[in-house]
Amino acid sequence: MAETAAAIDGELEKLIPSEAGPLANLMASLRYSAIGGGKRLRPFLTLQTSRLFSVPKSQALCIATAIELVHCYSLVHDDLPAMDNDDLRRGKPTNHKVFGDGLAILAGDGLLTLAFATLNGADSGISSRLRSQLTLELANAAGINGMVGGQAIDLQAPYQTMGPSDIRHLQELKTGALICFAVDAGAILGSATRDERDALKGYASSLGSAFQIVDDLLDMEGNSNEVGKKLRKDTAAGKATLVSSLGIDEARREAQKMTMQAQRYLECFGGRAELLREVTQFLFVRNH
Amino acid sequence: MAETAAAIDGELEKLIPSEAGPLANLMASLRYSAIGGGKRLRPFLTLQTSRLFSVPKSQALCIATAIELVHCYSLVHDDLPAMDNDDLRRGKPTNHKVFGDGLAILAGDGLLTLAFATLNGADSGISSRLRSQLTLELANAAGINGMVGGQAIDLQAPYQTMGPSDIRHLQELKTGALICFAVDAGAILGSATRDERDALKGYASSLGSAFQIVDDLLDMEGNSNEVGKKLRKDTAAGKATLVSSLGIDEARREAQKMTMQAQRYLECFGGRAELLREVTQFLFVRNH
Repeated sequence: MAETAAAIDGELEKLIPSEAGPLANLMASLRYSAIGGGKRLRPFLTLQTSRLFSVPKSQALCIATAIELVHCYSLVHDDLPAMDNDDLRRGKPTNHKVFGDGLAILAGDGLLTLAFATLNGADSGISSRLRSQLTLELANAAGINGMVGGQAIDLQAPYQTMGPSDIRHLQELKTGALICFAVDAGAILGSATRDERDALKGYASSLGSAFQIVDDLLDMEGNSNEVGKKLRKDTAAGKATLVSSLGIDEARREAQKMTMQAQRYLECFGGRAELLREVTQFLFVRNH
Repeated sequence: MAETAAAIDGELEKLIPSEAGPLANLMASLRYSAIGGGKRLRPFLTLQTSRLFSVPKSQALCIATAIELVHCYSLVHDDLPAMDNDDLRRGKPTNHKVFGDGLAILAGDGLLTLAFATLNGADSGISSRLRSQLTLELANAAGINGMVGGQAIDLQAPYQTMGPSDIRHLQELKTGALICFAVDAGAILGSATRDERDALKGYASSLGSAFQIVDDLLDMEGNSNEVGKKLRKDTAAGKATLVSSLGIDEARREAQKMTMQAQRYLECFGGRAELLREVTQFLFVRNH
């Protein structure tokens, strides 16, 4: 994962240059929230899935970078006072705390738009047919029936009574859709068979569920300094999570179940999927 | 232009359905700011330029709709309290006044993302090679070195001393880039020659400049009820425009010069460009 993070940082350095002149602050704001932070889980999933199908590294890195740009944009906008109102992200002040709300909105807009430019650059070696297909699927995963939709439900959630199935639906949209696309992108680039793609989708969906529950457990039980963001916010906001809905023990059992389910989906790939298998364990144990 | 507006509304109705359930408010927010308003100048330019090259209507309409979605997103975000803080747009309350700041941010994000999904749908008949090329150019026109960059400069403008050339640069990014792309998209779809594309770029650039000056004159001299948004805002915010920098008479002369220049660029297309010629006149006289 450290290798992936370094490779993604290298790409982002090229895409978002430091600049003097009238665009200096905007560029600094994008760089602040995109470069040098985060687990880079989504790029890791794309690169590892791509390896299963011997996709050229430059192609996998191109779409992995685009996906990470979308993820970074979503964090900047989600942290805004009008949304989750967070002061701390990846262990440092959130974008709007440093650059102001206006520039933070524009930085998010810029990161999102840059994702689509990056994916459609001609020098990645991805065919235009796949560039267009990946663009469509990335936009669907990130858009109103994906991540943006999930965030909209979450924004209104304190005013709603949500049961476990509503919460699962919210999380499938808010975090699941982009994680699923991160995995699927490697399969699309690698011309995976229908069966392989379905197995990887099952893996991604189970992994996404486990990831979200562990995140909610961290929010409930974690240490703010270690996690790098403010905690106990969901409880304070009266937001429903699977942890509040099922209780800590039952939620932890569900996370474990999802982790094992994710691993079962990888069986058809044998030893080649070792790192995809290991990452499920890594995500699960970071809470303990 | 009324025909174009009706066609675009028809496309947007299909893209953003009214919805019950948890996404109801988000969809309502997107529909509020996308459907049934505005001059639809950019789609008009795309459709008319496409006609010069006998581009199939479905192809032109697809990219015209994507461009209008980008324009609508930019208005929703620009109107936010953290940006221009506007209460009135297209003669009705701005999105965040109706749906709240959080949902307005998400509506803008959703409209922008939907633009890229729309452009890459398989049923427009546009080849994947052109879909990918148009996606890249749209993202560049809308992004940090285009519209988002211009808005960032504008946001910080009250604190800067800007001369006419700085202001022109700002406006080329903020409004010029997307207008130029709206015209260029028709030329790209129509496999225009280098000379034809250059002539149309000259037209679009001159038209964009004239359009911006007329907008600034309207801001200075117009009637808020007729224009449909709050006026005298630039003056109140201490923002530099070409009107404040050159004075009203000189600015009006420059707008007229740009209008005539735009028309000259169309000469090589003869009578086929009649509506593109007329629209320059329409934009210029709406101030008088």
